[in-house]
Amino acid sequence: MAGTIEFTKPSDALKKLLAEASVNLDGEYVDLVDAVGRYAYREYVSKVDLPPFNRSAVDGVAARFVDIAGASESSPILLKLTGSVDVDSTEIPVLKQSEAILISTGAPIPSGADVVIPVEYCAISGDLVYIYRTYPKYANISLRGEDLRVGSIIVRRGTKLRPWHIAALAASGYSQIEVFRKPRIAVVNTGNEIVRGVIPNVTYYVVTSYVRELGGEVVYSRVVSDDIDEIARTLREAVEVSDVVVVTGGTSVGARDVVPKALLKLEYSREVFRGVRIRPGRTASAYVVRGKPVILVSGLPVAAYISLDLLLPPLLGKACSTPFEFELKPSIVGKLIRKLPNEVGFRSFYRVIACRDRDEVLIIPLRLTGSGILSTLIKGNAILEIPEDFEGYEEGSIVKVTLINPLVNCSDIVNGGHDLKRGDSTQ
Amino acid sequence: MAGTIEFTKPSDALKKLLAEASVNLDGEYVDLVDAVGRYAYREYVSKVDLPPFNRSAVDGVAARFVDIAGASESSPILLKLTGSVDVDSTEIPVLKQSEAILISTGAPIPSGADVVIPVEYCAISGDLVYIYRTYPKYANISLRGEDLRVGSIIVRRGTKLRPWHIAALAASGYSQIEVFRKPRIAVVNTGNEIVRGVIPNVTYYVVTSYVRELGGEVVYSRVVSDDIDEIARTLREAVEVSDVVVVTGGTSVGARDVVPKALLKLEYSREVFRGVRIRPGRTASAYVVRGKPVILVSGLPVAAYISLDLLLPPLLGKACSTPFEFELKPSIVGKLIRKLPNEVGFRSFYRVIACRDRDEVLIIPLRLTGSGILSTLIKGNAILEIPEDFEGYEEGSIVKVTLINPLVNCSDIVNGGHDLKRGDSTQ
Repeated sequence: MAGTIEFTKPSDALKKLLAEASVNLDGEYVDLVDAVGRYAYREYVSKVDLPPFNRSAVDGVAARFVDIAGASESSPILLKLTGSVDVDSTEIPVLKQSEAILISTGAPIPSGADVVIPVEYCAISGDLVYIYRTYPKYANISLRGEDLRVGSIIVRRGTKLRPWHIAALAASGYSQIEVFRKPRIAVVNTGNEIVRGVIPNVTYYVVTSYVRELGGEVVYSRVVSDDIDEIARTLREAVEVSDVVVVTGGTSVGARDVVPKALLKLEYSREVFRGVRIRPGRTASAYVVRGKPVILVSGLPVAAYISLDLLLPPLLGKACSTPFEFELKPSIVGKLIRKLPNEVGFRSFYRVIACRDRDEVLIIPLRLTGSGILSTLIKGNAILEIPEDFEGYEEGSIVKVTLINPLVNCSDIVNGGHDLKRGDSTQ
Repeated sequence: MAGTIEFTKPSDALKKLLAEASVNLDGEYVDLVDAVGRYAYREYVSKVDLPPFNRSAVDGVAARFVDIAGASESSPILLKLTGSVDVDSTEIPVLKQSEAILISTGAPIPSGADVVIPVEYCAISGDLVYIYRTYPKYANISLRGEDLRVGSIIVRRGTKLRPWHIAALAASGYSQIEVFRKPRIAVVNTGNEIVRGVIPNVTYYVVTSYVRELGGEVVYSRVVSDDIDEIARTLREAVEVSDVVVVTGGTSVGARDVVPKALLKLEYSREVFRGVRIRPGRTASAYVVRGKPVILVSGLPVAAYISLDLLLPPLLGKACSTPFEFELKPSIVGKLIRKLPNEVGFRSFYRVIACRDRDEVLIIPLRLTGSGILSTLIKGNAILEIPEDFEGYEEGSIVKVTLINPLVNCSDIVNGGHDLKRGDSTQ
């Protein structure tokens, strides 16, 4: 039975999915304060110069460069203090030869001044000020437009809005921002055993909470038995109301491939790939229905998570015009404490514990690697990915792992904190 | 004026703040599907065994170990196929000597069987099946309770709930979960220049969106002039309604330290530290009022962000009984393209561009390092932290940076994509 399926390489599976499926997200306007974490729907450029005028970068004394040139600790230069200027001064004072003006950080530079001496290098005595250090022209002055100029790009289409983008957009006077609307996901769980309550619908919770972590909305969810017609009816509805459909179960390499059969019954339905060379998660498949992606994953929770984590972020990233960056996942480098083999041809996702041991980080593979074994994601705190063309890693290899739970101390594990012994002894 | 303040080491500042300030967050119940990303308020243990019964981990044939021992490609063993069992079978069949039963992934193991042979190593012929490979006892069987046993810990107090925790809690029958309520933050922006609209209130947006990224709620926000009494009145109110107060501006080392003066007027107010040895952000200070933390940061957006990023995550982490993990931030290692000096005694946060250049990652420091320069966080995509006891890094050093925006290709920068030239030429 297994022989009838050609497993696709994970990179090819992803490439095909991105090429054949399309997720079209409109823009929607949100208040600037609500835009953090969303993706810009279009380019936004600055409408103002920032700073809006030449201003002081320090608390100190504004002066003319020619007057203070050569000042030093041993031969300070004496200037006449004629006034002060603060951040909220409405009138900008004028500075003449051999004069100085007290100035606060952020205050406008007096006309005629071209340098600011920080307060630490000045000594004020009545209406006189001693300057103890020389500075180049324009030192400690933020020039108008030095930060952002009218027309300079703040965000591009697809930029994920972080606090600094929000701040720059605020500086430029934008109060509402057009962002990609959240992707709508339909979750369809198949399986008579779930319908009948023989086992709880755990995979529904994995998929739904994972979608939420990615910033998507679950807009539709159904549990259906392994009935091809019922699945087809449900999928037709799911495709209608969502951007991406995720189906769990019913994709086994074998007798229970009811979901692929149901998909064949749908109009404008096409297989993208069936089976991916990943472990766990090899039953993952994808179809497009009227161009919309339908992703099939295992009914077992860990396999479902690993498959979705391979396919969904790049798909949603493309929809929001943003590159999916593996590097944006937290990671840590550590020393593998024992040999880890790989079945060549499959990309393996080992669940491991990354722990601090004095100055180094140790990577301890968990032996429980069944695709249904949730506890490996609970006891473990990281995932070690072994590429499909690798035979594995030797003991002592330095490897990079993706952190999924916080880092722990190795001593806490020995003390039973993570129940390593049990995790490490059961095959 | 500057000499009156003793800047505190960043690690000491944090230690003092965590020791002296307290943030007390109650628990609140949320539906399981809404709990992802929140922090568990208490320990939850499994109420069930998972799997609930011995079940098959593969599609294949269930048999007795003694019957199949020694089977191989060259000398297969023949068994009698007496039935099949599926995931939703309500009756569990009985297996006798030299018999085999077809079994699906997840289906209960027939009584009498103690091994499952995957479908790939079986050949069915009528009511007979050839077994081509031997397996150890219990191979391909997930034992009852192997994943989670009644009483085994799913989450501890403070665990950040990820999809696998949600799934395990669902498996155990929990439908509502007690999580820490979201921390309530008050944001008070001071400065006559903001009140009068001379400059836009950019820092408000930095603080508010940063708080949201951290999972907090901004429950109170006010803009006040540099009036000590007005600030004191506002702070009294802010402390009342929030868990943490963030005040921007009015902390300059110099004439404008109106916020510390206002804090002296409040009852049960105490200084924790004034000034931290970080660049930018050295004016950051902290007080406690009736034990609640009041954090003072610069009115300049980048300095405000750097200071908050040092202090707020550990403070909120402690409040949620969760360790703050630097490692949970995305990071990348790369080669520094030019020497970067550090003023010893200060922890410096350089904004840099991390870019891919064939097989390596280059780290390009941005020369615009003014603390108000938002564009360094927009043009840059990473922050390079230099510890306070370091003299800096030589050209070519391999350094680890925290990614704040997606990684880019070096060629895109040269092509003007990131406007590097301008960023790199202005001092």
